[in-house]
Amino acid sequence: MIAALTGLMEKAGELMLQWENPQVFAKGKHADFVTEADVAVQELLMEQLAKLFPGAKFFAEEKKDNRLTDEFTFIIDPIDGTTNYFRRRECSMISVGAVENKKPVFGAIYDPYRRKLYHAEKGKGAWCNAQRLRVSEEPIERALIGLGSSPYYSELMELTGRTVGALMPRCADVRRTGSAAMELCDIAAGRSDGCFEWLLQPWDYCAGVLLVEEAGGRCGNIMGGEATYEKAIPFMAANAMIYDELQALLQSLR
Amino acid sequence: MIAALTGLMEKAGELMLQWENPQVFAKGKHADFVTEADVAVQELLMEQLAKLFPGAKFFAEEKKDNRLTDEFTFIIDPIDGTTNYFRRRECSMISVGAVENKKPVFGAIYDPYRRKLYHAEKGKGAWCNAQRLRVSEEPIERALIGLGSSPYYSELMELTGRTVGALMPRCADVRRTGSAAMELCDIAAGRSDGCFEWLLQPWDYCAGVLLVEEAGGRCGNIMGGEATYEKAIPFMAANAMIYDELQALLQSLR
Repeated sequence: MIAALTGLMEKAGELMLQWENPQVFAKGKHADFVTEADVAVQELLMEQLAKLFPGAKFFAEEKKDNRLTDEFTFIIDPIDGTTNYFRRRECSMISVGAVENKKPVFGAIYDPYRRKLYHAEKGKGAWCNAQRLRVSEEPIERALIGLGSSPYYSELMELTGRTVGALMPRCADVRRTGSAAMELCDIAAGRSDGCFEWLLQPWDYCAGVLLVEEAGGRCGNIMGGEATYEKAIPFMAANAMIYDELQALLQSLR
Repeated sequence: MIAALTGLMEKAGELMLQWENPQVFAKGKHADFVTEADVAVQELLMEQLAKLFPGAKFFAEEKKDNRLTDEFTFIIDPIDGTTNYFRRRECSMISVGAVENKKPVFGAIYDPYRRKLYHAEKGKGAWCNAQRLRVSEEPIERALIGLGSSPYYSELMELTGRTVGALMPRCADVRRTGSAAMELCDIAAGRSDGCFEWLLQPWDYCAGVLLVEEAGGRCGNIMGGEATYEKAIPFMAANAMIYDELQALLQSLR
């Protein structure tokens, strides 16, 4: 499936980098922004994917009335890391996942700054361009954990801070890139060992879940069970070695 | 002064990127590591700087018996972001500052992955390669704040977590790159708006202080006054607009 999509992901990346100073609009919640580039990239993806995969459904960040069915559905974040994008931090990803019967079957994440296409198809491994990816085997005390700050949800900020305080003595350190898709690429590639966010939307993690799982890691709902894709969930991912331990620690803080 | 140093910084960057799998050694404190590359880069810098600036003193991360006098002294972090370096996160900087009478007179920070040389000389502005840098003018509620996690100091971890919880409702979001030098380059370039770390060593911030100040921002001790360079301090930096507000917020948490 990635053969059909490579050109489109690269084209979307070129489009995204065309703006020097994209117009930024507040979406209402704390720190929740959209730019004209998010909208244009989503339009391009939806238009072209509909041609390549007639009948496919869409569930996407800048689209209204998202409702997930059992049909083959693309779950899209046109620019994951919008704040990074308009602050020129060069750390934003285009994330295109696909689910069928509400389970992930395909994921592609494109980093337009480094021209890296991360991709995974169920049962076929995780890749960055032509390179096979494997998660790390670091134990918790040497682990780097990606911090999701749930910036849109005021009620979770104290919990997020408490999580940082509780994690620091148990792991090596935390990181926060500001792009959940990038965190999942980092875990799949063994550059970090886990991540969490107390409330995260399906378009932020859908493509990344399959990438991490096909690289030998695990993803799920912090409070238990697999990740689901209907609405925002408390999300986590980690290498297989530390997943249970990280989950127990996170659950103890809720 | 940067003319004399450009070649050396680039050479140090090439040396740093020569290792595929550098040997990593624990330095004793929590999450405090050094690699063979840190040692080699520091040796190269000290040897060549001693030739270029006869009589210069050195104060450096991987050197014993650091003691600051009023003489012209290079303050060096051969690889700022050592954990990022051996985890292949491509986010580590070579930081060379210089102080005289214990005040910064020069700073250079080299990003070998992006081949960007950030530099500042007292009174001559802040630069990235040939581009002049200016801090942002974002107010606190739209600010991105770089989080220093003080990973080596267990007694500060709860405070660091509490700081994240207190900052999140006041600013737009936090970031954590894992390199203090990178955070200061980001502030100088307007890609973020402030940063803090409850205990930070002089080699982590010396070069960056002049960069931020020459770009129109401010740096100092969280608890008050200018940054000093004899030993680790509670360090902060920000654009001029939010410095006082961020400092008051941080002080209220100590």
